[in-house]
Amino acid sequence: MDYRIGVDLGGTKTLAVAVNEEGQVLGERRFPTSPERGPDSVLEDIAKTVGELQDELGAPAQMLGVGIAGQVDSKSGYLNYGPNLSWRDVSLSEPLQQTLSLPTTVLNDVRAAMVGETKFGAAKGYSSALGIFIGTGIGGGFISAGCLLEGATGSACEIGHVIVDFKGPLCSCGNQGCVEVYAAGWGIAARARERVAARESGYEAFPSLEQISAKDVFKLSQSQNPLAAVTIAEMESALTSLLISSIHAFNPACLVFGGGIIDGHPQLIERLKKRVVKKALPIAVSSIVFSQSILGPSAVAIGAAFYQREVKS
Amino acid sequence: MDYRIGVDLGGTKTLAVAVNEEGQVLGERRFPTSPERGPDSVLEDIAKTVGELQDELGAPAQMLGVGIAGQVDSKSGYLNYGPNLSWRDVSLSEPLQQTLSLPTTVLNDVRAAMVGETKFGAAKGYSSALGIFIGTGIGGGFISAGCLLEGATGSACEIGHVIVDFKGPLCSCGNQGCVEVYAAGWGIAARARERVAARESGYEAFPSLEQISAKDVFKLSQSQNPLAAVTIAEMESALTSLLISSIHAFNPACLVFGGGIIDGHPQLIERLKKRVVKKALPIAVSSIVFSQSILGPSAVAIGAAFYQREVKS
Repeated sequence: MDYRIGVDLGGTKTLAVAVNEEGQVLGERRFPTSPERGPDSVLEDIAKTVGELQDELGAPAQMLGVGIAGQVDSKSGYLNYGPNLSWRDVSLSEPLQQTLSLPTTVLNDVRAAMVGETKFGAAKGYSSALGIFIGTGIGGGFISAGCLLEGATGSACEIGHVIVDFKGPLCSCGNQGCVEVYAAGWGIAARARERVAARESGYEAFPSLEQISAKDVFKLSQSQNPLAAVTIAEMESALTSLLISSIHAFNPACLVFGGGIIDGHPQLIERLKKRVVKKALPIAVSSIVFSQSILGPSAVAIGAAFYQREVKS
Repeated sequence: MDYRIGVDLGGTKTLAVAVNEEGQVLGERRFPTSPERGPDSVLEDIAKTVGELQDELGAPAQMLGVGIAGQVDSKSGYLNYGPNLSWRDVSLSEPLQQTLSLPTTVLNDVRAAMVGETKFGAAKGYSSALGIFIGTGIGGGFISAGCLLEGATGSACEIGHVIVDFKGPLCSCGNQGCVEVYAAGWGIAARARERVAARESGYEAFPSLEQISAKDVFKLSQSQNPLAAVTIAEMESALTSLLISSIHAFNPACLVFGGGIIDGHPQLIERLKKRVVKKALPIAVSSIVFSQSILGPSAVAIGAAFYQREVKS
């Protein structure tokens, strides 16, 4: 039986799936990640889980792929920086490969998800697709003619740090006005906090400053809280700009949306589409498709299992 | 003798070059374009010039490529919109191919230039390169592993309409705060005009409103005119944001700068590099190369001659 194993290594939980060449999930395991125990311990947990899946299926997997939020150098198999894990410069593929005797690859989680969506999901059959995953942060992945754009140093499609407002608020990366400052979970919370601190209309409905989260903003916007409404409107404007810029840069046939904020508010996709199609260069949006991730919470793990580094001549 | 012919069809002048497989220019012709006489007449001029070059070289060319500023559908050989020519929906490759009996391709001028720079110029030997051409407008072209990114509808890399300030001034495309509103020739002039109209410090040194050009702004900034200095500083900030966003999107190994404003002010490249390398994600700029177009005024024509539409399976 031919199958592969893919792992979605997240900040709080890890998902491992065994998947066959048709994309069918043959088995899966979940466990809490505990990154504070350090990479060795987490890699041990992964190796143990992969071993269990192999035992369950009664045959060795053909390969192992691991998707992680952050900057991953898929050439060397190093995680340069994983914000959700708080790890820096950690070798991932080599220790796993040695322990498990399986060809092992690692890559950025959204890029992994887009490999999965292209092979089995929302981007299947399109000449090119751009993934836009909006959660605590904003990540991207671009696939054209079946090839994942990796970039010279493995950091292509860091679209959370596309600048939409160069005179805007400071981002975690040190620049001003990256789209994340308005539209990532952390940015939505930060903008609302500023408005609550300034006692803008509607501030009374919010929890204390340090407790404000993006969830509060979404929830209060549904009851027409003006502060929340302004914050969400700004988020939508910033995302509209990101999409227009990304469409003008990549001219994809298809956009695939995913991530926690999209999963919680899928109606955002249609709202953004209306604005973007009206505003972007007509040639670039004449036949563009907006869709939601189909593989959902398994996209990263399934995609990671099918990732192959291009061998370029 | 094996050679190709490339044409740079500009708004005021056209350059045709005959070039061999090593990139050597074997012959060239220039003529004024007169787009107001209509496409038929201009295509006739091109056909005549190509005929003359073939006569001069005593052998037929192997192919003809035409580069044009604007939105070109290289699949169909149509110019969808050429702002410098004021043409819309014009079939270009078919009439030329019929008249000349030569395989003919058409593509966007900056994309053509990047084909040339990758084969014979500043981007040669790099795994990927992003071209940023700054003149009256701002255009781009991205090549990765030898393949030009065309996009689903041939409009990839319209980086002049990447939004850097979504609350900013109106662009010709209908959006707010595209990088062109601050950093293209037309945008620099428009921003200076606003400041002169508002009588900001330094306005007396400018010509009358309708005569203000980007050249005036650059010239006056050299004599420390404060209005010109502010306008140039804003242009540099906007370009810095475009570069950071583009590097985060494409993660290129190499940036190639060209276009009228760069040719006139090549020191801009170094100034932008200093700011960008300090501000972009370290992994994305750790080994990035900033360079100026090497093929210069012949880049579009030489590149167009070597453009081949990818046949993708």
